[in-house]
Amino acid sequence: MAFEFRPMRSVIFVDCVREEYRHRLLHWLYAMHVPDSISKFGPYVTKYAFYNALPVPPGGERFGTRRMQMTEHYWLLNEMTPEMSVNAFTERMPVEVLRWQGMIPDDGVDLSHEANMDGDTHRASGGGDMPPFVFAHVPINWEEDFKGAGRTLDDGPNYRWQFVVEWPDEAAGEKWFREQLVPFFRARPEVNRFVTSKIYHDVVGCKFHRLVELWFDGPEEWKTAVDAADALPKPAWAQTERFPFLKSNFNIVGMFLPDMAASDNLTQYRGYITMR
Amino acid sequence: MAFEFRPMRSVIFVDCVREEYRHRLLHWLYAMHVPDSISKFGPYVTKYAFYNALPVPPGGERFGTRRMQMTEHYWLLNEMTPEMSVNAFTERMPVEVLRWQGMIPDDGVDLSHEANMDGDTHRASGGGDMPPFVFAHVPINWEEDFKGAGRTLDDGPNYRWQFVVEWPDEAAGEKWFREQLVPFFRARPEVNRFVTSKIYHDVVGCKFHRLVELWFDGPEEWKTAVDAADALPKPAWAQTERFPFLKSNFNIVGMFLPDMAASDNLTQYRGYITMR
Amino acid sequence: MAFEFRPMRSVIFVDCVREEYRHRLLHWLYAMHVPDSISKFGPYVTKYAFYNALPVPPGGERFGTRRMQMTEHYWLLNEMTPEMSVNAFTERMPVEVLRWQGMIPDDGVDLSHEANMDGDTHRASGGGDMPPFVFAHVPINWEEDFKGAGRTLDDGPNYRWQFVVEWPDEAAGEKWFREQLVPFFRARPEVNRFVTSKIYHDVVGCKFHRLVELWFDGPEEWKTAVDAADALPKPAWAQTERFPFLKSNFNIVGMFLPDMAASDNLTQYRGYITMR
Amino acid sequence: MAFEFRPMRSVIFVDCVREEYRHRLLHWLYAMHVPDSISKFGPYVTKYAFYNALPVPPGGERFGTRRMQMTEHYWLLNEMTPEMSVNAFTERMPVEVLRWQGMIPDDGVDLSHEANMDGDTHRASGGGDMPPFVFAHVPINWEEDFKGAGRTLDDGPNYRWQFVVEWPDEAAGEKWFREQLVPFFRARPEVNRFVTSKIYHDVVGCKFHRLVELWFDGPEEWKTAVDAADALPKPAWAQTERFPFLKSNFNIVGMFLPDMAASDNLTQYRGYITMR
Amino acid sequence: MAFEFRPMRSVIFVDCVREEYRHRLLHWLYAMHVPDSISKFGPYVTKYAFYNALPVPPGGERFGTRRMQMTEHYWLLNEMTPEMSVNAFTERMPVEVLRWQGMIPDDGVDLSHEANMDGDTHRASGGGDMPPFVFAHVPINWEEDFKGAGRTLDDGPNYRWQFVVEWPDEAAGEKWFREQLVPFFRARPEVNRFVTSKIYHDVVGCKFHRLVELWFDGPEEWKTAVDAADALPKPAWAQTERFPFLKSNFNIVGMFLPDMAASDNLTQYRGYITMR
Amino acid sequence: MAFEFRPMRSVIFVDCVREEYRHRLLHWLYAMHVPDSISKFGPYVTKYAFYNALPVPPGGERFGTRRMQMTEHYWLLNEMTPEMSVNAFTERMPVEVLRWQGMIPDDGVDLSHEANMDGDTHRASGGGDMPPFVFAHVPINWEEDFKGAGRTLDDGPNYRWQFVVEWPDEAAGEKWFREQLVPFFRARPEVNRFVTSKIYHDVVGCKFHRLVELWFDGPEEWKTAVDAADALPKPAWAQTERFPFLKSNFNIVGMFLPDMAASDNLTQYRGYITMR
Repeated sequence: MAFEFRPMRSVIFVDCVREEYRHRLLHWLYAMHVPDSISKFGPYVTKYAFYNALPVPPGGERFGTRRMQMTEHYWLLNEMTPEMSVNAFTERMPVEVLRWQGMIPDDGVDLSHEANMDGDTHRASGGGDMPPFVFAHVPINWEEDFKGAGRTLDDGPNYRWQFVVEWPDEAAGEKWFREQLVPFFRARPEVNRFVTSKIYHDVVGCKFHRLVELWFDGPEEWKTAVDAADALPKPAWAQTERFPFLKSNFNIVGMFLPDMAASDNLTQYRGYITMR
Repeated sequence: MAFEFRPMRSVIFVDCVREEYRHRLLHWLYAMHVPDSISKFGPYVTKYAFYNALPVPPGGERFGTRRMQMTEHYWLLNEMTPEMSVNAFTERMPVEVLRWQGMIPDDGVDLSHEANMDGDTHRASGGGDMPPFVFAHVPINWEEDFKGAGRTLDDGPNYRWQFVVEWPDEAAGEKWFREQLVPFFRARPEVNRFVTSKIYHDVVGCKFHRLVELWFDGPEEWKTAVDAADALPKPAWAQTERFPFLKSNFNIVGMFLPDMAASDNLTQYRGYITMR
Repeated sequence: MAFEFRPMRSVIFVDCVREEYRHRLLHWLYAMHVPDSISKFGPYVTKYAFYNALPVPPGGERFGTRRMQMTEHYWLLNEMTPEMSVNAFTERMPVEVLRWQGMIPDDGVDLSHEANMDGDTHRASGGGDMPPFVFAHVPINWEEDFKGAGRTLDDGPNYRWQFVVEWPDEAAGEKWFREQLVPFFRARPEVNRFVTSKIYHDVVGCKFHRLVELWFDGPEEWKTAVDAADALPKPAWAQTERFPFLKSNFNIVGMFLPDMAASDNLTQYRGYITMR
Repeated sequence: MAFEFRPMRSVIFVDCVREEYRHRLLHWLYAMHVPDSISKFGPYVTKYAFYNALPVPPGGERFGTRRMQMTEHYWLLNEMTPEMSVNAFTERMPVEVLRWQGMIPDDGVDLSHEANMDGDTHRASGGGDMPPFVFAHVPINWEEDFKGAGRTLDDGPNYRWQFVVEWPDEAAGEKWFREQLVPFFRARPEVNRFVTSKIYHDVVGCKFHRLVELWFDGPEEWKTAVDAADALPKPAWAQTERFPFLKSNFNIVGMFLPDMAASDNLTQYRGYITMR
Repeated sequence: MAFEFRPMRSVIFVDCVREEYRHRLLHWLYAMHVPDSISKFGPYVTKYAFYNALPVPPGGERFGTRRMQMTEHYWLLNEMTPEMSVNAFTERMPVEVLRWQGMIPDDGVDLSHEANMDGDTHRASGGGDMPPFVFAHVPINWEEDFKGAGRTLDDGPNYRWQFVVEWPDEAAGEKWFREQLVPFFRARPEVNRFVTSKIYHDVVGCKFHRLVELWFDGPEEWKTAVDAADALPKPAWAQTERFPFLKSNFNIVGMFLPDMAASDNLTQYRGYITMR
Repeated sequence: MAFEFRPMRSVIFVDCVREEYRHRLLHWLYAMHVPDSISKFGPYVTKYAFYNALPVPPGGERFGTRRMQMTEHYWLLNEMTPEMSVNAFTERMPVEVLRWQGMIPDDGVDLSHEANMDGDTHRASGGGDMPPFVFAHVPINWEEDFKGAGRTLDDGPNYRWQFVVEWPDEAAGEKWFREQLVPFFRARPEVNRFVTSKIYHDVVGCKFHRLVELWFDGPEEWKTAVDAADALPKPAWAQTERFPFLKSNFNIVGMFLPDMAASDNLTQYRGYITMR
């Protein structure tokens, strides 16, 4: 058995489909999932952080904006190989958790007595009709830097728009990205920073092609910029009439994030402590 | 000079008046305010935590629901006495921070060159027309327990509605609270827990009379319960037509909170670390 | 309501009545009880530590030697006053936990559906026929120092015998302690250190009179010393024929402990993380 | 010089041959060995944990059950290569420590003035007549999973029996393991989980062939299962009459462990702090 | 026995009389004294920090400037009362440590076999001819603020001159302080901040009257300001010809310090870890 | 893109050219640089520590002794490859910081409005006339061990002389090192430990050939040893008349260090907290 050094970053965009579930998801994430996860991957993950989703801005819905958090890992190796498949414990993942995240229908069917679902099954659980579970592995540093290199923390807090895209046609989509989208956003005065990486397909079978991040001063600047994008010509492969021309929450999924992690779990977690 | 042992808890309800400001407020809170605060009160504060506000539920606006976070301290002594008045450093509190929190008008007037405002001035900065800064000191444990004693973490995650009230007429308000409000909520099946304490007026001159906390399964149960409260007779001192009969964000101010702290600063803070 | 500054230390001697329960007790203690406790008393407890019981040495049974751990708290105030009685959450304490600790009979009666028992009820749960729950509050520093003052860590690791006694007759017991026991152990070459304090009766109603600690090089030296104590004349109030003349696990309860805490919970706890 | 990425886990079964030594071993481990070790391998070890041995259950002696702790490391590379051989400091390892652990005879010969023994020499110090020092390197995840996959923390605390075996004849032993032992324990209702890995021989020259772990509800269930194993036919290579047919503490060495680490040193160690 | 709530801050100015001793003092402080101290006073000290002395600036010698570190504690009670006198362990304080700090003569007399000196004896060890051990208890906040209130961290890093004075004549010295020194430094443009407190005499019998702190941009600005003080008239009680008119290292003792602690021991200490 | 596993250690010798700058450099290092750095390289750096320079001993100037700190990293990969070149944020490095460290002239020219300089540019910023920025990558363990193997912490605190050399002629310099310097220092009784490694030239283009470390009891023993080195014959390539025959601060640069890190940033950093 061989263990290859393969440093990677991964991002997961976790949704919360109903406000009735937000505090339950929080409880599961911090009381159960963080300790289960650290127990499992502590020896080969070097950063494991949660970033709270900022509220969906007006107009954000058509970009597949999710509402709970971005879960980020930095890996030293690929956890999905055969030699990594046996684990002492399986993470607790009650099926209700999938419902709260929008991975199974929020239809009231009682699934509370279903068997526990392990993390990997969960990661693969997005059915045909449900939005995909987004678990995208990328290089540990960004591959391409289109704008804003040299920005420091003193240049101000950032409103970071992070999203993945799955082009209906990869070649055409990539061409459009380079020829239309990159020049457009690079030229927008509201865009302070613009970076991107291709997504590895060989890790968890992620179908998305590209992870993109654009930084703005705030949601108002973001809106100005994406509204201006309505002037972009509609590409041949367009799935929708308006920019981004992709099926929301299926072909484009993303989140608005601050610079700061809500919890850098490996260094900050100290158990589930409650308000008195 | 004498230093009296006076253990107290305090709660601050921080608002965010525009989404354009949320990530900036986050930056100020974690990059500047936490280290400034720990530097200042570390030796006599035993818990210093931030709890993220859950989104305002439908109908939550008329209860003065604030949108950023509840800041909680546990004190060993009263920091507001004369012998505590000299500090080596003053906390950094740019006036913009007050604007983001709704303590001064969000009118675009440039105040960026105004002198820094210290924490205490800030705490007293709510002008006549602006909503009050809420900084309420209470006993370290709840004074009265109306419902739900014995609840444990295994009974499920809680949707906690915490609010302060300033009665237009204290005696009448307190009487109404005991004779109407307490029996009403105690009888509601949606209410899982109900506790309250009187607010100390001699610490920072807080005008609010009472801190109340009610726990529900979620915002939907909360809505059912408060909608039912429309059946309560309108009291003589009512400031508004509907329950809670108090001027929103002035005489009643509150927040919806999960059980868990977003950051227990004294044990979890490790500097302002950013997403790569 | 008043909160008095009353720094105290308390010790709890936790038993494990059957090896079948040790790992379960460990799980409850670290996965549930530590976070429940920190959530409850974090703001007014300054040290909260577990010390693992060393195995019962040959001859140790007649001294009421318990087998799990000593739980230690340092308090800033008395948690048992009326103004401290309302808590947001109650600690989870399944009745099985009491069985594992020997507070209720290990008789196989199914109590798994019994209501949760809160910490204070637990602390008072020792029935007439069962050994008492030992929760002894003492001054934060030892009151009397009979031998070994000046000992440092460089003098070697210590085998610490800590026990509480309830004299059948307080006056006679105290007299015997001072006139017989103190001179005897002070003169024994095996005793490296000898300290004691009276136990506060007004905190949790603890019936024990005195907490005593004697340090030895190891269990063999301890045995030599207590075997020599057989030469002590039997006091009038003796409950048993041999030294210590007290009913084991009822009138004398203790533990053998190393210098080091197994877990200093407030500084070291980081969630319940399992072996892979 | 080349540094190969070679993630490995290692386990060490530390014995305590006399109760007179347990607190001394604790002192050496936590006051000296942990800081020495972190100083040495901090940059390339990702987990370094101690797990306290549970008491030897009745019948446990014939399985080479050790009595102090299991020391676990997760490595990023092989520390035993030539390019890793020069270290600024050598770990302090007084020869008495070897005596306490049963690696040299407990014969009272004064060795206190012997030179310090470094960690690697220690690891190789088991002489012909003394039980071997067990330092077994295995893949970071278990290689084979025979029973209980999918078990989560909610399925209850586990009584984990971990042991290494050195077959007198590797081929015959491995064959017997697969054809007799695996089916036997897989079929036992007391066995909740059963995993195993082969041990790397090229790291520290460990002679043991295999690391095995079986989980039970507790020691009583373990005893039922191993007593039933007396029905297994005695293999040709048997060294003893009864199951496990291996020379205790030489060809089979193991330990009973809970799920939880006593100390996860890299994250929890905060110096050697003593009871007051 | 009674324990009074008496929050205090204390400062100790530790010298290093020869560079040959600096790394040894560092080792004793961090490898032995920090864990000994935390073990002793952890339950009633809320901050325990070391601040590294900045190098003595030109001209700094006549102000009794010490060269190792300022040790700071924040206490909840007076540790020097009878009820606090019995401690399980005594801190290790080899007499050499006193030599390194200049509390006993650096005369080469071998004292290595002298008994350990406990912390309190140490604190009282300054003989008639040797400079005094400075252990000054003051209120937790500064008593008087003469200049620079409102300064924040954004106003720049500070060069802080902290010193204690013992007036030959308290009344005359205090009068001169208020009438000469305060107006002088308040008027100096180099002085950014100026605070002071009286020292408690009833805690450890400290003879010094007053702790003073003045902040400058750096040592050059400090020199300009103290050189200008040569213009101050020589007071009747002067012990020396030049400002500060006090016997260096006896009647005035101080240190130059940065804003930041070298180690905030209660939160940052993680054992004595060495460079590889 | 490929990420090679390449564990390395690097050392940076940071100077402070004027005492006016020491506290400013401290502020920049701890308030800005540590969090910027952790944010950047946290996922692939396993140790990041600062070691405070001990004061320059008499005679230390001609060895290029720097005066601030040694900054040490342990890397899992080479951060200087193309695939690592895009970073979300750039570290804040005001040009004044370079002046404080002696990388640009301390000539009073106002550079405060210059653009921020990123870390890599900084690392390459030493101009022709200014001393070089020393950023030397070496294997994670020392390559050669000439003296003192087996030394433990109990052998006493160490005065560690660490330096890099750039030979005017590599072959001749290396020959002289092995034939003259190694035998000389190995034979000196003042030298307790002596190790060395070659520096990698392919990481950041470091021109220095070798990192050397020699341990002494203190600066007095160091002086005795280097004074004795005056007896060494002057090599043909000598740049100066006296040992070390290399241009100070250009061809030889070093530092005197204690065993202990001032701050092990990844485990100890908790934000920039100031003295009250």
